[in-house]
Amino acid sequence: MNDLGRWAVHTATTKPWDLETAIRKYAEAGVAGISVWKEALEGRDPKAAGAAIRAAGLKAVSLVRGGFFPAPDPETRAARIRDNERLIRGAAELGAPLLVLVCGAHPKVRIAEARDHVRSGLEAILPLAGKEGVRLAVEPLHPMYAGDRSVINTLKEANDLCEGVGSPSMCVAVDVYHVWWDPELEAQIARAGRIGTLAAFHVCDWKTPLEDMLEDRGLMGEGCIDIPRIRGWVEKAGFRGFAEVEIFSRRFWAMDQDEYLGLIRKAFQEHV
Amino acid sequence: MNDLGRWAVHTATTKPWDLETAIRKYAEAGVAGISVWKEALEGRDPKAAGAAIRAAGLKAVSLVRGGFFPAPDPETRAARIRDNERLIRGAAELGAPLLVLVCGAHPKVRIAEARDHVRSGLEAILPLAGKEGVRLAVEPLHPMYAGDRSVINTLKEANDLCEGVGSPSMCVAVDVYHVWWDPELEAQIARAGRIGTLAAFHVCDWKTPLEDMLEDRGLMGEGCIDIPRIRGWVEKAGFRGFAEVEIFSRRFWAMDQDEYLGLIRKAFQEHV
Repeated sequence: MNDLGRWAVHTATTKPWDLETAIRKYAEAGVAGISVWKEALEGRDPKAAGAAIRAAGLKAVSLVRGGFFPAPDPETRAARIRDNERLIRGAAELGAPLLVLVCGAHPKVRIAEARDHVRSGLEAILPLAGKEGVRLAVEPLHPMYAGDRSVINTLKEANDLCEGVGSPSMCVAVDVYHVWWDPELEAQIARAGRIGTLAAFHVCDWKTPLEDMLEDRGLMGEGCIDIPRIRGWVEKAGFRGFAEVEIFSRRFWAMDQDEYLGLIRKAFQEHV
Repeated sequence: MNDLGRWAVHTATTKPWDLETAIRKYAEAGVAGISVWKEALEGRDPKAAGAAIRAAGLKAVSLVRGGFFPAPDPETRAARIRDNERLIRGAAELGAPLLVLVCGAHPKVRIAEARDHVRSGLEAILPLAGKEGVRLAVEPLHPMYAGDRSVINTLKEANDLCEGVGSPSMCVAVDVYHVWWDPELEAQIARAGRIGTLAAFHVCDWKTPLEDMLEDRGLMGEGCIDIPRIRGWVEKAGFRGFAEVEIFSRRFWAMDQDEYLGLIRKAFQEHV
């Protein structure tokens, strides 16, 4: 993709950099948007962080990540709701229009019940989201995380959840890593466009073999995902927002991060 | 499940045992059915193996596994079709009514094209399957294998493929490990019952965390899959065949296999 005006990067992609370094380096490299992980905000005032982002000429795309609603006991579930409310306020202070949600899963909670926990958790935080003007982006996670990270595993399920809850504060984040395999993907991206839920687009690649289920994502072009095809579907559905580079990779975190950001820029232009 | 008459085991589950040992040990332990991996047949006459299985009082449930249709070059694809034809003949000689198919994937073939390779591969081998009286059981594989093992990743897709091809020689194998996370699972199992494709039911469990994507399956009851619930759906759809224990696990392969088979029997009775 030649339009670097749509190039965004997640702070977790360049995890060795603290937030201040990431803001400065991204701006220097021509990145246009930044999605801020809550870990990068630790010990910082979100308002000041938001001001620094804007002063550098960047746009805050989203705060990442809330969710994690299912738990065996009601006390933990209530605590998770309070955590999410803090994150909604944090996103508003940061000036990010979206809070990305990894909805959660728990090995001791059966999947059907965990899905109920997700829905009731979302319904509990929606009033505050509406009041603060922050949309909640449900990110369907790859089914390989259904046991411990998220029981929302397809874009259909995320769209169904948005329609079921029926609030304009609900939307979806499409990450190619999680959904590239899905034979329903094109249809569900089109549906997300129709129902107004398509709010974020994350890119990376899927390597084979995968060395680690969490921290071996590929740089765009390294793997088997047809990213331009999926981007085409997303654009056909009316989405004109950022393509956010979100890569967790021990391999890339171990290298010089300036050099890595250069590789990301090249991969973004050639393979997104 | 108390009905040990429906207890079957895959030879790959007890990989350290050769076929002759597996037949003897399974029969002694009260196993009723055996699914034979092609590796266990190496250097053996399938007819003689089938006779030995029947003489031990066991039933040959399936031959595992054909498929692997997608490849970048037509020569490889043609060779894969010949491999599958050999396996169809092998299943017939063994006396197994099913050939289980892992349909295949290839990192250098885009997923949409790979799905076309699967369909044309199946169509090429169907005439022989019909002639030999062997049904082809498409096993949807977990989406985490979409890059290198199978591009058929949901039961809906497998059912669609069977209906699309429209041959009574096509059917599906439901393995809880691959499909447990799918919000459409109950509906697609019911559909498989209606359209007559529901031909095999495989059980194991999903551990969290998963130490290895291939060889860290759990024994039933060790993980987060609600197996009795899925078995209920399968039975409601009219299936009365075997529940086949298919576990790939370095941890269990490293232990005494007699003791392991005892654990499997107990887990089958308590958690299937």
